[in-house]
Amino acid sequence: MNREFLIQQIRNKKSFLCVGLDTDINKIPACIRDNSENPIFDFNKAIVDATAPYAIAYKPNLAFYEAEGVKGYEAFEQTVRYIRDNYPDIMIIADAKRGDIGNTSNLYARSFFGHLGVDAVTVAPYMGEDSVRPFLGFDGKWVILLALTSNKGSHDFQMNEEENGRRLFENVILTSQKWASADEMMYVVGATQGSMFKDIRALAPDHFLLVPGVGAQGGSLEEVARYGMTEDCGLIVNSSRGIIYASSGEDFAEAASAEAGKLAAQMAELLDGYNRN
Amino acid sequence: MNREFLIQQIRNKKSFLCVGLDTDINKIPACIRDNSENPIFDFNKAIVDATAPYAIAYKPNLAFYEAEGVKGYEAFEQTVRYIRDNYPDIMIIADAKRGDIGNTSNLYARSFFGHLGVDAVTVAPYMGEDSVRPFLGFDGKWVILLALTSNKGSHDFQMNEEENGRRLFENVILTSQKWASADEMMYVVGATQGSMFKDIRALAPDHFLLVPGVGAQGGSLEEVARYGMTEDCGLIVNSSRGIIYASSGEDFAEAASAEAGKLAAQMAELLDGYNRN
Repeated sequence: MNREFLIQQIRNKKSFLCVGLDTDINKIPACIRDNSENPIFDFNKAIVDATAPYAIAYKPNLAFYEAEGVKGYEAFEQTVRYIRDNYPDIMIIADAKRGDIGNTSNLYARSFFGHLGVDAVTVAPYMGEDSVRPFLGFDGKWVILLALTSNKGSHDFQMNEEENGRRLFENVILTSQKWASADEMMYVVGATQGSMFKDIRALAPDHFLLVPGVGAQGGSLEEVARYGMTEDCGLIVNSSRGIIYASSGEDFAEAASAEAGKLAAQMAELLDGYNRN
Repeated sequence: MNREFLIQQIRNKKSFLCVGLDTDINKIPACIRDNSENPIFDFNKAIVDATAPYAIAYKPNLAFYEAEGVKGYEAFEQTVRYIRDNYPDIMIIADAKRGDIGNTSNLYARSFFGHLGVDAVTVAPYMGEDSVRPFLGFDGKWVILLALTSNKGSHDFQMNEEENGRRLFENVILTSQKWASADEMMYVVGATQGSMFKDIRALAPDHFLLVPGVGAQGGSLEEVARYGMTEDCGLIVNSSRGIIYASSGEDFAEAASAEAGKLAAQMAELLDGYNRN
C-alpha cells in the first residue's frame, strides 16, 4: 500500500484509526472461547468485520500469537489472509519489533512481506542500518521504526542525551532518514508524551507516525492531533484493548464497533478541524 | 540452568561453544532437503547429535524458522524438544531479540520459558526496563541482553557517546545491572570488536557474555578469550554457519562434528591457559 493510497483511505473513511489485534486467549469472551475450535481467529474475524468501516489499519502484535505456539501462529496467518481477502484496502501492520543482523533481517522481510503479505512491519533500531535495510525496497511496503515508545522504560535509553545534543530517539529519526524516505518509512511515537510530537515534527515533518498508547496506555487523541497532524494527516493512531475488549459478553463485536466508531468520529472532527485552519 | 550448573558444564566439556542453529532451508544439504518430509528438523537433529560432545549451548535463531511460517515454527519447537529430551545438560538459547511493552513481553516470556522451555532468550534493550523485566525471575532462566552487536550497523547508535561520557552500549550494560544480577542476565557482545571486551569487563566483570560473530562474521576466538575470559570462563562463543554448513554433501554431520571439535579443542587450550596464568 503506497503513501498516496493510504492518504486516500484516510480521506475516504475520515479516520486514521488502527485497531490493534492483541488477541489474548485468556481475554476472549467466553462465548467464543468455549464454543469455537479456533477461538483466536474467530474472535479476530468478528472484530475485523465489526470495525472495518472505521479502521484504516489492523495491527496484530506477534507476541500474542507466538504465546500460543504453532496454533497461535496459524491463527495469525489466517487473520492476515482474512483481512487481505476481504478488506484489501486496509493496511496490515505486523507488530513484530524485529531487528537482527542483515542476513537474518532478510529472512524476516521475506517472511512478512513475501510469505505473509503484510504491508508494514515494526522494526527495532538498536542494531542499526543493516538490520533495517533488508525490510526496505519492497514496492508498497513499509518499515515502521521504533523511535519513542509509550512505556515507562522509554526513559531508560531513548531519552538519553547524546554528544550532538540530541536525545537517542531523535538521533534514530535523523539517522534513519538517510536510509529511506517518507514513502517507505514511518516511526512509532508513543502517545503518552503528546508535546514530544512537536519535537518530532521538527525532525520528520512528512513521515507518518504510528501512535500506540491512545486509550489503555493513556494518551490523548486531541493532543496527538494538535502536535502531530500534517496536511496528509501523517498519523495512524492505534487502539487495542479499548476496542477489542470493550465487552466480554456476547455483544463484544457490537461493543467493539461502537468504540471504534466513537474514535473514528473524533478523528473525523480532528481532520476537519485541521483542514479548516 | 543456573550459573553453577553452566560453569560445571563448561569445565566438564572443556568448551564454551554454542552452536547456532540458523537453519536455512535453502542451505540444507540436498540429501536431506530432497529426501525428508521434515528437512529442517531432520537437519537440526543430525547436527545436534554430531556436535553435542563439544557444545554447551544451542542457539536457534527464530528468524530462520519464522521465515518458513507454521512449518518452520513446528520445526523450531521439535528441535527444542529434541535437545531438551536428549541433551538435558545443554543450554538452549532462543535467539529472538524480543522486546516489547510489559504486558507483551510477559507473553513472550510465557511462550519461551513456559510453553517452549528454553533456558535463555535474547532481548533488545531499546524499550528499557519494563520490556526486559517480564523475562526475569524465572528460576534458572536467563535474559541475554543485546549490548554490542557484531554487525556494521552497531556503529549507528550503540557507539553514540552520551551525556555521561559513556557510549550507549555501556549505558545499556550499566543501567541493566540495576534490574538483574549476573545470575540471570548475560550480554550479547559482538566478537568483531575484540578490544571492546576490555571496556566491557570493566563494567561487567562477572557477567557471562554471549559472543556471536566468531567465524563467518570474522571475530578471533583468541582475542575474545584474552580480553573477555574470567575465572568462571564467563564466555559463551557462538558459531553457526562455520559449523552447520561445513559440508553440503552427505558427510555434513561429520564435517560439522569436526569443525565443532576443532573450536572446542582451541577453547580447551584457552581455558587451560587462563588457569595456568
